Amino acid sequence: MEDNLSRSSRGKPIRCRAAVSRKPGEPLVIEEIMVATPMPREVRIRIICTSLCHSDIIFWKMKEFPGIFPRILGHEAIGIVESVGGEVDEVTDGDIVIPTFMSDCGECIDCKSEKSNLCSKLPFKVSPWMPRYETTRFTDLNGEILYHFLSVSSFSEYTVVDIAHLTKIDPAVPPDRACLLSCGVSTGVGAAWRTANVEAGSTVAIFGLGSIGLAVAEGARLCGATRIIGVDVNPDKFETGKKFGVTEFVSAENSGGKPVSQVINEMTGGGADYCFECVGLSSLVQESYACCRKGWGKTIMLGVAKPGSQVTLPASAILHDGKSLTGTLFGGLKPKSDIPILLKRYKDKELRLDEFVTHEVGFEDINKAFDLLIEGQSLRCVIWMNK
Amino acid sequence: MEDNLSRSSRGKPIRCRAAVSRKPGEPLVIEEIMVATPMPREVRIRIICTSLCHSDIIFWKMKEFPGIFPRILGHEAIGIVESVGGEVDEVTDGDIVIPTFMSDCGECIDCKSEKSNLCSKLPFKVSPWMPRYETTRFTDLNGEILYHFLSVSSFSEYTVVDIAHLTKIDPAVPPDRACLLSCGVSTGVGAAWRTANVEAGSTVAIFGLGSIGLAVAEGARLCGATRIIGVDVNPDKFETGKKFGVTEFVSAENSGGKPVSQVINEMTGGGADYCFECVGLSSLVQESYACCRKGWGKTIMLGVAKPGSQVTLPASAILHDGKSLTGTLFGGLKPKSDIPILLKRYKDKELRLDEFVTHEVGFEDINKAFDLLIEGQSLRCVIWMNK
Repeated sequence: MEDNLSRSSRGKPIRCRAAVSRKPGEPLVIEEIMVATPMPREVRIRIICTSLCHSDIIFWKMKEFPGIFPRILGHEAIGIVESVGGEVDEVTDGDIVIPTFMSDCGECIDCKSEKSNLCSKLPFKVSPWMPRYETTRFTDLNGEILYHFLSVSSFSEYTVVDIAHLTKIDPAVPPDRACLLSCGVSTGVGAAWRTANVEAGSTVAIFGLGSIGLAVAEGARLCGATRIIGVDVNPDKFETGKKFGVTEFVSAENSGGKPVSQVINEMTGGGADYCFECVGLSSLVQESYACCRKGWGKTIMLGVAKPGSQVTLPASAILHDGKSLTGTLFGGLKPKSDIPILLKRYKDKELRLDEFVTHEVGFEDINKAFDLLIEGQSLRCVIWMNK
Repeated sequence: MEDNLSRSSRGKPIRCRAAVSRKPGEPLVIEEIMVATPMPREVRIRIICTSLCHSDIIFWKMKEFPGIFPRILGHEAIGIVESVGGEVDEVTDGDIVIPTFMSDCGECIDCKSEKSNLCSKLPFKVSPWMPRYETTRFTDLNGEILYHFLSVSSFSEYTVVDIAHLTKIDPAVPPDRACLLSCGVSTGVGAAWRTANVEAGSTVAIFGLGSIGLAVAEGARLCGATRIIGVDVNPDKFETGKKFGVTEFVSAENSGGKPVSQVINEMTGGGADYCFECVGLSSLVQESYACCRKGWGKTIMLGVAKPGSQVTLPASAILHDGKSLTGTLFGGLKPKSDIPILLKRYKDKELRLDEFVTHEVGFEDINKAFDLLIEGQSLRCVIWMNK
C-alpha cells in the first residue's frame, strides 16, 4: 500500500499542520510548519493518531532545560510511512509504524543482549534534536527551527523519526488502540512482565493508579498475580482499577494514621512480592521498598521524579532484608520485538487496551486533551490528526 | 563416634573455659563459666576451633545496644555435638557441626522458598539471647548471666546452639578449613554465587579486599568471571587478591583525582556487570552503583554499615539506568543445604580455603587474634580451643 501523497511529496519538504508548544504551560498553537526530508536512517511518517502521556505535560510546563521552546511535543502515536531516507530497508512507504522514545538499533551490545533494553547506540535522552544527527527537521513558516521531543514529536501531521525508533506493526489493529503501545501501556505492562517478571500467584502493590499504574495492574493480571493492591490518593481510582485487575485498594491519604507501607505489610502478612512506584516521588519509592517482602521483594520505579530528586534507604534494610530496588524505562521492553507480541495479545483478547481510551478528540481540540489529563478526567485521550 | 565427655556431662551443666568480653574494647578475659544443658531443639557443642570475623570486632567495641556486656562473642566456628535437648533428631552426640548466625528452620515459608535464605521462624537479629527462648545458657562462677552473640558464642569451650543454626557436615574436612564456612567465606562466595549469580565471562568489581571481598573474588572466579577488579585503600591487597582471582586493582586513595566509579567505568567501557560493596560505607555503595553497567548491572551490599547509615541514590539514575541494588546476609546461602556443597567443592579442590588462614593461635592467645585483624595483618586467624 502506498500513500497517495508519497508520490508527490517524496524528496521534498512537506508543509503541514502541527500543534506547537511555544511557551511553557501555554496552550499549543496549531500552525503550518515545514517538515524536512528524512536523512539517512530516518523515516518521515504521517501521524494517524497520537495520545497524550503525562510526560508531555511535564515537558510542556518545564521552564528550564531540558524544557525548551518552541517545540513539537507528543511521543505516543501511530503513523504511516510517507517516505524513507537512505539506508532504510526495514520499512517502506505505506507501512504502519509505531514510533517510540526508546530506540532499538538491533546492533549494539545492549540491543543484542537479552538483559537490557537500553540501546547504547542511540541512548535515551531528553534531547531537542533528532537522535542520530542532533539537528531538527522542523521549521516554522518564518524559517525558525522547532525542537523535537523524545525522538518522536507526534503533535504534527508529519514527523521524522529515526528507523531505530520505529516498529513496523500489523495494520489490522485499530490505530487508536495500537498507539497506546507507543509509550504508557507498554511501560506499565512491560514493567510487570519483563522487568519484574511477576510470578503467577504473587502479590503486587502499585503506587499510583494513573494509566501507567493501571497498565502495571494489567501486566500483573496477565502474569497471573493473585492479589493486586492499588494505592492512590483518589479512592475513585479503585473502580477504574478493578477493570484492570486491581483487587484491593489502599488510600494514600486516609490509611488510619498508619504509613501506607505498614498497611500493606499488615494486609499481606509481610509485604508484597513486587511493588511498583508509578508516581515519581522519592518518598513513595521508600514506602514501596518498606512494604516489599523480605527475602525476595522487588521494588520497581517507573515514575518520573523531579530533576535532582534523591531516594534514600536505610543501609541496614538493604543489607538485612534481601530486597531489591530497580527502575525501568519502557517497561524493559525492546520495542521492535515486544510491541508486536503485545499487539498479538490484544488481538487474542488477552491484553486490554480499549479500557484505557476514555476520550477521543480531533487535532483542533488538542488543548482539551491536555485539560482532561491535568484534571485527572482521562486515562488516555486519543487525538485524531484527520478530524 | 561419641565424645567421651558426653557420657559424664550429658544432662548436667558443664564448667569450662570461655573468653568473656566484659567491657567494650577491652581484652577478653579467659575465665571459667557454666554452660547449661540444652533446652528442647537446642544442642550443646564442644567448639573445636573458631576464627575471628570482623563483626566480632564491631560488637566487641560497641558501647551501646545492641552492644552488651558481659558477653561471649565469636560466631565462626566448628564443633562436635556433646549432647542434644529434646525434639532434636537431626544430629546426635559426636556429630561434627558448623554453627551459623543464620538459621535454617526448614519449615517456614522462607526456608521452603528457593528465593529467600532469611528464615522467618527465627529471623536474624543481633540478640543477646538464645533465639528460640530469649534466655541465656551461660553464667559465670558468681552466677551472673553472660550474654550470647549471634546465636553462636563460639569463644567458649562449650556453647549451646539452636538446631536451626547448626549444619551437620562431613567430618573429613579439616576443622580449621571447614570453620571458615561458618560465616565470612560463605558470605562472600555466596554473594557471587547465589545472590548475584555471576555469569561466566562477566566483569566484577569488589570494593574492599578483606576476607569477605576476597571470598567474593573466589566466588566470582568459581562462577567464571573474566575480569575481577579489586578496590582497596591498601595496594598490598592486590598481591593477596591475585590468589583469589583478582585480575586488576584500583586504589581507592590514589585514582588520579577521579572517583573510583569513573576509573572503573573507563576501564570497563561502561561499568562492571556486578559490583560488591564489602566495607559497609554508604558512600561506597553509591560508588558501586555508579559503576555498575547500565541496563543490567547489579550492586550487592555485603558490608555492615554503622547503625543509622543511609544510602542515597539519584532518582533519575534508578529510573533511567536499569541497574539494581540489593543486599545479602550470609551470601544468600541456606546453611544446611549450601555449606555441604561448598565443603564438597573444597574437597574437590575447586574452592580455595587454605589461603584464607593466615594465622593460627591457641585459645589463650585469643586477644592476639583481635590485634592481628585490627592491624590488618590477618585474613582469618584460627583459634584452637584445645591448644
